[in-house]
Amino acid sequence: MDYFCKSNIKFMNIYDLAIIGAGPAGYTAAELAGKNGLKTILFEKNNLGGVCLNEGCIPTKTLLYSAKVFQTARDASKYAISCENVAFDLPKIIARKNKIVRKLTAGIRVKMNEAGIETVIGEATVKTKGDGRTAMEIECNGQVYAANKLLLCTGSETIVPPITGLKDTAFWTSREALENREVPESLLIIGGGVIGIEFASFFNTLGTKVIVVEMQDEILQGIEKELSALLRNELARRGIEFHLSAKVVSVSGGQIEIEKAGEKSVLETSKILLSVGRKPVSTGVKVNEYMQTTHPDIYACGDITGFSLLAHTAVREAEIAVGHILGKSAKMSYKAIPGVIYTNPEIASVGKTEEALQSENIAYTVKRLPMAYSGRFVAENEQGNGVCKIIESEDGAILGVHIFGNPASEIIVIAGIAIEKGIKAEELKAMIFPHPTVGEIIKETL
Amino acid sequence: MDYFCKSNIKFMNIYDLAIIGAGPAGYTAAELAGKNGLKTILFEKNNLGGVCLNEGCIPTKTLLYSAKVFQTARDASKYAISCENVAFDLPKIIARKNKIVRKLTAGIRVKMNEAGIETVIGEATVKTKGDGRTAMEIECNGQVYAANKLLLCTGSETIVPPITGLKDTAFWTSREALENREVPESLLIIGGGVIGIEFASFFNTLGTKVIVVEMQDEILQGIEKELSALLRNELARRGIEFHLSAKVVSVSGGQIEIEKAGEKSVLETSKILLSVGRKPVSTGVKVNEYMQTTHPDIYACGDITGFSLLAHTAVREAEIAVGHILGKSAKMSYKAIPGVIYTNPEIASVGKTEEALQSENIAYTVKRLPMAYSGRFVAENEQGNGVCKIIESEDGAILGVHIFGNPASEIIVIAGIAIEKGIKAEELKAMIFPHPTVGEIIKETL
Repeated sequence: MDYFCKSNIKFMNIYDLAIIGAGPAGYTAAELAGKNGLKTILFEKNNLGGVCLNEGCIPTKTLLYSAKVFQTARDASKYAISCENVAFDLPKIIARKNKIVRKLTAGIRVKMNEAGIETVIGEATVKTKGDGRTAMEIECNGQVYAANKLLLCTGSETIVPPITGLKDTAFWTSREALENREVPESLLIIGGGVIGIEFASFFNTLGTKVIVVEMQDEILQGIEKELSALLRNELARRGIEFHLSAKVVSVSGGQIEIEKAGEKSVLETSKILLSVGRKPVSTGVKVNEYMQTTHPDIYACGDITGFSLLAHTAVREAEIAVGHILGKSAKMSYKAIPGVIYTNPEIASVGKTEEALQSENIAYTVKRLPMAYSGRFVAENEQGNGVCKIIESEDGAILGVHIFGNPASEIIVIAGIAIEKGIKAEELKAMIFPHPTVGEIIKETL
Repeated sequence: MDYFCKSNIKFMNIYDLAIIGAGPAGYTAAELAGKNGLKTILFEKNNLGGVCLNEGCIPTKTLLYSAKVFQTARDASKYAISCENVAFDLPKIIARKNKIVRKLTAGIRVKMNEAGIETVIGEATVKTKGDGRTAMEIECNGQVYAANKLLLCTGSETIVPPITGLKDTAFWTSREALENREVPESLLIIGGGVIGIEFASFFNTLGTKVIVVEMQDEILQGIEKELSALLRNELARRGIEFHLSAKVVSVSGGQIEIEKAGEKSVLETSKILLSVGRKPVSTGVKVNEYMQTTHPDIYACGDITGFSLLAHTAVREAEIAVGHILGKSAKMSYKAIPGVIYTNPEIASVGKTEEALQSENIAYTVKRLPMAYSGRFVAENEQGNGVCKIIESEDGAILGVHIFGNPASEIIVIAGIAIEKGIKAEELKAMIFPHPTVGEIIKETL
């Protein structure tokens, strides 16, 4: 393979692959490359694991699980269990979260060692890109490294919109919210996307008065609207205040001016969480279906590509990129990427939404069942409701599956596999789902 | 279709299909038949839902969930949640279980009505089987009904082995254990199969001293031995006493004599639960791959066939039988039937075990990862351990998947679909599992 042949004689060591960024894309790529015999170097300017592991997926899920345990204990009488003085200890919750993060980053370090990966902590910059015959040069901590292939996985960053007064106001992003050790009296969340809603759910459970301001007419853009509305209603019932189709005009200390249908009003809050979204750290990175940029020796994976900004997309992209470097021909497919909102109850979704199909003018039919059609759901969710919604094409292909109810996150991949593999509704219905499980709702709904 | 043509003139109404037994096989078959236009009658001598719904799967899972909530509250400090005086109320747990069963049987009644099924409560007997040209006659509550096709789903019953003294001793079967409202001081369980172990786990959580006596050298026969041993060790750590390779010789009140490697000893207990297994109520019912008996108009599904005595097998068999009556050609497949033990943590299993493959002389390789490789598992299972074990053939086909750790029950079907559809290990690994989920452990292990 050609990447073993290129060389610039001035370097002692030429790596087969250099990876910049050790988030899910970077560490997955590194492990796979190393295990397949590629001499690989991995650069990371902060911590192994990236945003996902250090200040994203894992920390939030750790916090949300403590909140779930708190809810379970508080509502235990539904299941004929009594307990008194149920309380939480936020500093301990945060400390546990930090412990979990340390444990998992240590796990990645072990994986990197086992795969023979050289890891460098520091900000890496690409000095020369090579010309296909000479290796690339990457500088980090004053040292220059040479590599035949380069994979960019430098991720994304929080968007800070140009709201009047925001610069002069103390506000949280998800990073600060994850480190906070005091329960705020009130919290105004700018942006009702996944991050905003997960934190809204968390702080509401702890007793904070939560207000969510969302520009669009529904929270959780991109998620099946019917389910987003169900979750919003459930959260509103628990005391969260929602302002939809509302724009934040200005921020001044704890005073937030919003505009809604031309009317302005002022909301008061003790803390602000900004969660309007994330954006790739570099703009204009274009890749083909092998995650190859316009430079054939440079690949890009993960949030930097801007496709879905999800860790599991990044992981698959990394597998594709390294596979391509190794001479495999698998292409990236984006048709069955699950999306999960880890509130309690959860929403999980894969494939097309009704809204998307309508805008694409694709004919479809909808099947829908309450989650209570699953006996296990009834046994484990006293007074709980939820819905399973399956969207099919006219020829019985599964186009989208959207589930509101626990553990939607764990069962959605069943539908994802069906969509990716072209398993039709009738075939999936013929599968044997263990009884009693919540997953049976998919078979029942089909 | 021929079943519309047969008739005995003496009957006013001839049903297309008569079904005896309204457990999972019976009600699934009835609903499907009704929805497809077959005039269907369903006979049930006890309650709609059968053993599964009334005294099996659903009631046990309801109890086990209360036990899980109790455990969660008791161990809440692991997640920085505190609560005091955690207690359970067994009569209320049983009352809730009864409420859930009533709710779900009511749901089946609604389904039967919606599908236009006539339901008769009473013991049905087949008077004449017809000769292919005349309809069958079924008697119930003194009335005679005629039908062109018959489906037998009369289920299974608890095995009561001929143990000396057992007849003269008060003992529980699962039925009595589910109605019991007092926590026994001690409970000796004869039989360490799924039913025995689930009850062992439940009563151990409530504080009962539990002893399990199992004839084989490991509990949970048929389940991957490595996992059964892990669960047994975990339960032993919680105080359950196990006697393996031990035979109950005689029972006399609370004195149970067992024999182990030729040595006899006596165990004392306040209650006895007999759970050595279940057997079909009729012996010698043989069916082909369409669930058709030797009489072409008589089908049999569910426990009566003796194949797996699991509700989800029964459901699929019912789909096959009714499909065949409707002219479809799908055949029953037993290669991907999941098995679940709903302890906390759960075991779930699908496909072949190592033991089975060895006895069949089939070559295989094993991949194995601790559950802690899943970030979500770590976040939600403080100090929890578990394992995911995947057995592959030499050409990369998935032969068996065995998982110890929550929520194994909900994710095992992913592996079941792969086995049933012939999706190879490499293909399944290429699927996008949402992150962070416990289900990712399958992708990681592959």
